[in-house]
Amino acid sequence: MIIIGEKINGFIPKTLAAIEARDEAYIRLIAKAQAEGNANYLDICAGTAPDVERETMEWLIGLAQDEVETPLCLDSSDPQVLLDMLQRVKKPGLLNSVSLEVGDDGRTKCEVIFSAIADTTWGVVALTCDNKGIPDDPEVKFEIAAKIIDQAAAAGIAPERIYIDPLVTTLATKQDSLLNFTEAVKLIGAVYPRVHFTSGLSNISFGMPFRKAINTQFLTLAMAAGMDSAIMDPTSPDMQATLHATEALLGKDEYCMEYLTGYRAGLFGAQPA
Amino acid sequence: MIIIGEKINGFIPKTLAAIEARDEAYIRLIAKAQAEGNANYLDICAGTAPDVERETMEWLIGLAQDEVETPLCLDSSDPQVLLDMLQRVKKPGLLNSVSLEVGDDGRTKCEVIFSAIADTTWGVVALTCDNKGIPDDPEVKFEIAAKIIDQAAAAGIAPERIYIDPLVTTLATKQDSLLNFTEAVKLIGAVYPRVHFTSGLSNISFGMPFRKAINTQFLTLAMAAGMDSAIMDPTSPDMQATLHATEALLGKDEYCMEYLTGYRAGLFGAQPA
Repeated sequence: MIIIGEKINGFIPKTLAAIEARDEAYIRLIAKAQAEGNANYLDICAGTAPDVERETMEWLIGLAQDEVETPLCLDSSDPQVLLDMLQRVKKPGLLNSVSLEVGDDGRTKCEVIFSAIADTTWGVVALTCDNKGIPDDPEVKFEIAAKIIDQAAAAGIAPERIYIDPLVTTLATKQDSLLNFTEAVKLIGAVYPRVHFTSGLSNISFGMPFRKAINTQFLTLAMAAGMDSAIMDPTSPDMQATLHATEALLGKDEYCMEYLTGYRAGLFGAQPA
Repeated sequence: MIIIGEKINGFIPKTLAAIEARDEAYIRLIAKAQAEGNANYLDICAGTAPDVERETMEWLIGLAQDEVETPLCLDSSDPQVLLDMLQRVKKPGLLNSVSLEVGDDGRTKCEVIFSAIADTTWGVVALTCDNKGIPDDPEVKFEIAAKIIDQAAAAGIAPERIYIDPLVTTLATKQDSLLNFTEAVKLIGAVYPRVHFTSGLSNISFGMPFRKAINTQFLTLAMAAGMDSAIMDPTSPDMQATLHATEALLGKDEYCMEYLTGYRAGLFGAQPA
C-alpha cells in the first residue's frame, strides 16, 4: 500500500488552528509522526482562503521537508497553485488533484498540469469528475478515467504516475457507495492495470456514529477490489492494524513479515488483543 | 448475517473451567449475553473427554434453553452424540458438524445425520473434508461440498438447511488461507446459490500477534465473498462493529438502520470513535 499521510491539511480543525497560530512545532510533530507511520507521501493542503493559500503552503512545505525526507503530495483545487509550489519542493512527489474540470482559461486541470510535469517524475491524483460533477455511474467514472489516462499518455506520462480516485460517496445517503467505488476500480483496473487507485477514507462515513468502523472496513473492501493507495492517517493504530491485516490476508505479505514488523514497531496492537 | 455464538464451548479455557466446576451462573451469563448480541444460534460444545461428553452436553443444553429462547447449534465430532442430544432440545437448530468422513460403522457423518433429520427442520454445518483430511485445492473443496449437498437433496434436505464451512487454514503457515477460502465460497456459491456459508473466525490468526485484527478483516473479506454466517463471539464490540459496518458497506443494510440500531443498543462503539 502507498500511504498518503492526510494530517497536514487545513480542513482538519486541529491543523487549521496550528496554521493560524503558525505553530511550527505541531506541523513538525505530525510530519514526523506520519513519516514514522510509513507514509510514502505527506499531503500538504492549506485549507485557507485563496489569498493566503500560496503563503500557507510555502510555510507548510518548508517545515515538512525540513523535518522529514518523505516526498510531498501538494494538495489544492487550483492547478496554478500546484504549479507555483512545484519549484519550492526538493524532490518529486504527487499533485493532488487533476480532473476533467475546465477552469476559467478554458483548459481542464489535466491539461494545465500534464504539460507542466510531462518531463518530470511527478505523479498526480486524478479525480473521476468533470464540470458535470461526480458521476453516479461507474461506467461514466471509467470513461472519465480513460480520457485522463489517455491525455496523460499523449503527454508522455506513464500510467504508473497516475493515482485514480473514483470519489466515494457518503454511505448514509447512498447505500451503494462502496459497491459503486469498487465497481469503478474494477472497470478501470481491468483496462489500465498499471494505474494506482487511491481514496480518502473518511467521506464514506460522514454523518454516521463510530465512523472508524466504516472507514476501516471501507479500506479493507477497497483494497480487496484493487485499491493500492489511501489518503489516511498513518498514526492511527486502527488504520494500521486494518491495513497490515488486510495485506496479509490478501496474500501480499510474504510470511506475514510486514504484519509482524508493524506490530513490533508499535504501529498497532499496543493495546491487548 | 446469521450469527452462531461460539462461547459455550469447552475448548475455550474459561468455559471449560465453568464446565468442570459446574458453574451454572457463568453458562447462563454467556448464554444471555450472546442472545443479547443477536446470536441466531448458540453453539453447545462439551470439549470434554468422550466418556462425559453426553452428560456435559445435556447439562449445557438444559441451562442454555432454560436461560434463553435462542435455538442451539449442537457441536460434537461424534454424530451419534449429536443424534442422542436431539431429543433434549426444545426447538430445531443446527448440528455441527457433518462431512464425508467415514466412521467405524462404514457410513459417512452425512449419511448418519441426514437420514435422522430428513423429516425435521434441523440444519447442519457441513465441513468440506473427508478421510483424506482437509483438501488444499478449492476445487476439491467444491467437489466435497457438491457431494454433501447432493446427498442432502437425496434425503429431502433443502440447500437452505446446509451451512458449508470451507475450513480456513492458518495464515501464518499458508499465505493463501483467505484467498483459498473465498475461492471455495465463490465456486460453491456459483453452483449452489441457496446454501449458507459459515466459518469460525479465529483459526486463521493462530500464532499471530494482535489476532483480532486478522479475525475482523477475515470476517469482512469472507462476507464480501459471500459468507453469510459466522461462528463468532457476538459479545465482542470489535466483531459487532466490523459485522455491522461491512453489512452496511456491502449494501445489505437499508438506510444503515441495522448499523444505527446496533450502535444505539451498545453492541459496538461505546468507546469513542
